[in-house]
Amino acid sequence: MIADAVCETFKQAGITINGPDPWDIQVGVERWYARVWREQSLGLGESYMDGWWKCRRLDEMFYRLLRAGTEEKVKKSLRSLMLSLPAAFFNLQSRARSRMIAEHHYDLGNDLFFSFLDPYNQYSCGWFEDTRDLAEAQRKKLELICRKLNLTAEDHLLDIGCGWGGLAKFAAEHTGCTVTAVNISREQLRYARAFCKGLPAHFVDRDYRLISGQFDKIVSVGMFEHVGRKNYRTFMKTVHRSLKDDGIFLLHTIGGNRSRIGCDPWITRYIFPNGMLPSIAQISRAVEGLFVVEDWHNLGPHYDKTLMAWHDRFQHAWAGLQTHYDDRFKRMWDYYLLSCAGAFRARSIQLWQVVMTKSDVGTAQPNCRF
Amino acid sequence: MIADAVCETFKQAGITINGPDPWDIQVGVERWYARVWREQSLGLGESYMDGWWKCRRLDEMFYRLLRAGTEEKVKKSLRSLMLSLPAAFFNLQSRARSRMIAEHHYDLGNDLFFSFLDPYNQYSCGWFEDTRDLAEAQRKKLELICRKLNLTAEDHLLDIGCGWGGLAKFAAEHTGCTVTAVNISREQLRYARAFCKGLPAHFVDRDYRLISGQFDKIVSVGMFEHVGRKNYRTFMKTVHRSLKDDGIFLLHTIGGNRSRIGCDPWITRYIFPNGMLPSIAQISRAVEGLFVVEDWHNLGPHYDKTLMAWHDRFQHAWAGLQTHYDDRFKRMWDYYLLSCAGAFRARSIQLWQVVMTKSDVGTAQPNCRF
Repeated sequence: MIADAVCETFKQAGITINGPDPWDIQVGVERWYARVWREQSLGLGESYMDGWWKCRRLDEMFYRLLRAGTEEKVKKSLRSLMLSLPAAFFNLQSRARSRMIAEHHYDLGNDLFFSFLDPYNQYSCGWFEDTRDLAEAQRKKLELICRKLNLTAEDHLLDIGCGWGGLAKFAAEHTGCTVTAVNISREQLRYARAFCKGLPAHFVDRDYRLISGQFDKIVSVGMFEHVGRKNYRTFMKTVHRSLKDDGIFLLHTIGGNRSRIGCDPWITRYIFPNGMLPSIAQISRAVEGLFVVEDWHNLGPHYDKTLMAWHDRFQHAWAGLQTHYDDRFKRMWDYYLLSCAGAFRARSIQLWQVVMTKSDVGTAQPNCRF
Repeated sequence: MIADAVCETFKQAGITINGPDPWDIQVGVERWYARVWREQSLGLGESYMDGWWKCRRLDEMFYRLLRAGTEEKVKKSLRSLMLSLPAAFFNLQSRARSRMIAEHHYDLGNDLFFSFLDPYNQYSCGWFEDTRDLAEAQRKKLELICRKLNLTAEDHLLDIGCGWGGLAKFAAEHTGCTVTAVNISREQLRYARAFCKGLPAHFVDRDYRLISGQFDKIVSVGMFEHVGRKNYRTFMKTVHRSLKDDGIFLLHTIGGNRSRIGCDPWITRYIFPNGMLPSIAQISRAVEGLFVVEDWHNLGPHYDKTLMAWHDRFQHAWAGLQTHYDDRFKRMWDYYLLSCAGAFRARSIQLWQVVMTKSDVGTAQPNCRF
């Protein structure tokens, strides 16, 4: 009975349990049906990590599942199953991830990330404009950001949540600007300082709410996903206060198609109490009276390509990583990268670059059409 | 007492009553102070039409007034005065305008509009990219729309609210597409049919809610301002229903920086009960679950240039128009064009081109970066 119902749910999305297609699910443990039925998306992911099922093209499986999940006609069971999947992405990027993973006795370090990232260590969406190469796409992304901000050697740029300092390095090298970057990860700050040695880039251990001073340009890449709905307005007020009157602000963030009021229960229980993908409505509400939105660029399909490139590089790097990470970790990481690639392919989640200027006193008129 | 208070209000915006600067107000009638004090923005406009005051650069006066109006520090009186000014723009574009003007014994016809519009009769924002010429800017705007929609000879384009058929003509001529256009103005439909004679463009007298059939691409330029907040969702559902799965929708509309719940009292009383400038939050809420927003392009500063070009051409055309329109009408039209130019210059209102695809079944991935 339950097995039939689970099969029927997947069948609505064109996925056959133990079927012949690359996106079909191969179930190795009979208890899987009951677990997925009971635990929904959480059970689907955990049972994959446990090796209860396989799939040759996880990305295509998720693409079909999420595509079907948005259609009116599908059963509620499928939608319930899908509800929390896209959320997995940013939670795995959260600071809390390291705590969760530590609890699972993993020791996630730079070796893991640098094994699949590009030379600028961009743990965010690349721009695959006229290229299929990850390193090239990340350089193009960084160049796009510098152009949208109209960065020059006269500018003092604030980078809120700077990762390993890749953007700071690229911007300082290519435009001559001065960079101040804030981050709360001491590990990343230590790496970034070494990475940018000799450049006018300063890395500060500070919560974004405590930023002082005023800057010509402000950028935040892949950090807003961790801010949380209740802090959107505070975040935007902080940026507004820190930006000069003729300044430009660029926000680079993953976003969701719908405004969600609450968090997914799986996230709340296991990963990140405040994590949330913003909607356009939520971001635009948060900036009303503070910023004029000059440009809203959706690069979602480029994140599909980025994640597939990361996954491909991760496969090649695995031989060197497997002395530090076990097979369960490998399946978790595959599941994370490929489910998110599928989610971007299904257009369930988006990647936005939003360019803003100050609405009350702003004089900048940026050109963002490249 | 009242005169001092009015002077002080304008002084906060850098405007001196009877001062020497081009943006200063020259008051010719002593009762003006009391009228503006009592009737706020309505009194300011009507007293201009009545010839009670003059200003060499109305656009610059409004720019300063609106700029100051958004600052926290200015007095409530100034903000109250400014509240309804940007609203004037779209109300004057409304169908109800003709009713209002008829009541005032004016006979607004095509002769007025065609005296200052470009050869494609574009009564909407141009794109002054590498040009200062209105006709060129309007052709560039039309070309931009065709490129964003990726229009080809295979496409059937739906134009919701087509004006005098300029976009239909340009699109059919330059891309070879077939156009179906709906409008509820019989006067405009009659003109559009003659204007597009011999081209595959069909003009239908129909409310947008009654559109039938499915189209490859859908465009709506300068019509959403008349839809009204309560109908945003209905409008978007209609577009969604009428668009093929791999289709692209482009919305071109004026927008406001803030989400306003109610209408300005002046509008409600005199002009257009349902008129409203949408905010980003309102539009994005209305499309949730229907469309993926692919691109949001703010062309606001180009509307400043468009309005100044219209005003300039209107001045030159006046000699030929003044047999049909009186001086009060001339002042009304100047006030309308220049106050709106000032509002766009102050960034109080915006002009958006929003490109969307269907989120549930959509397969199009438009490139909008030109």
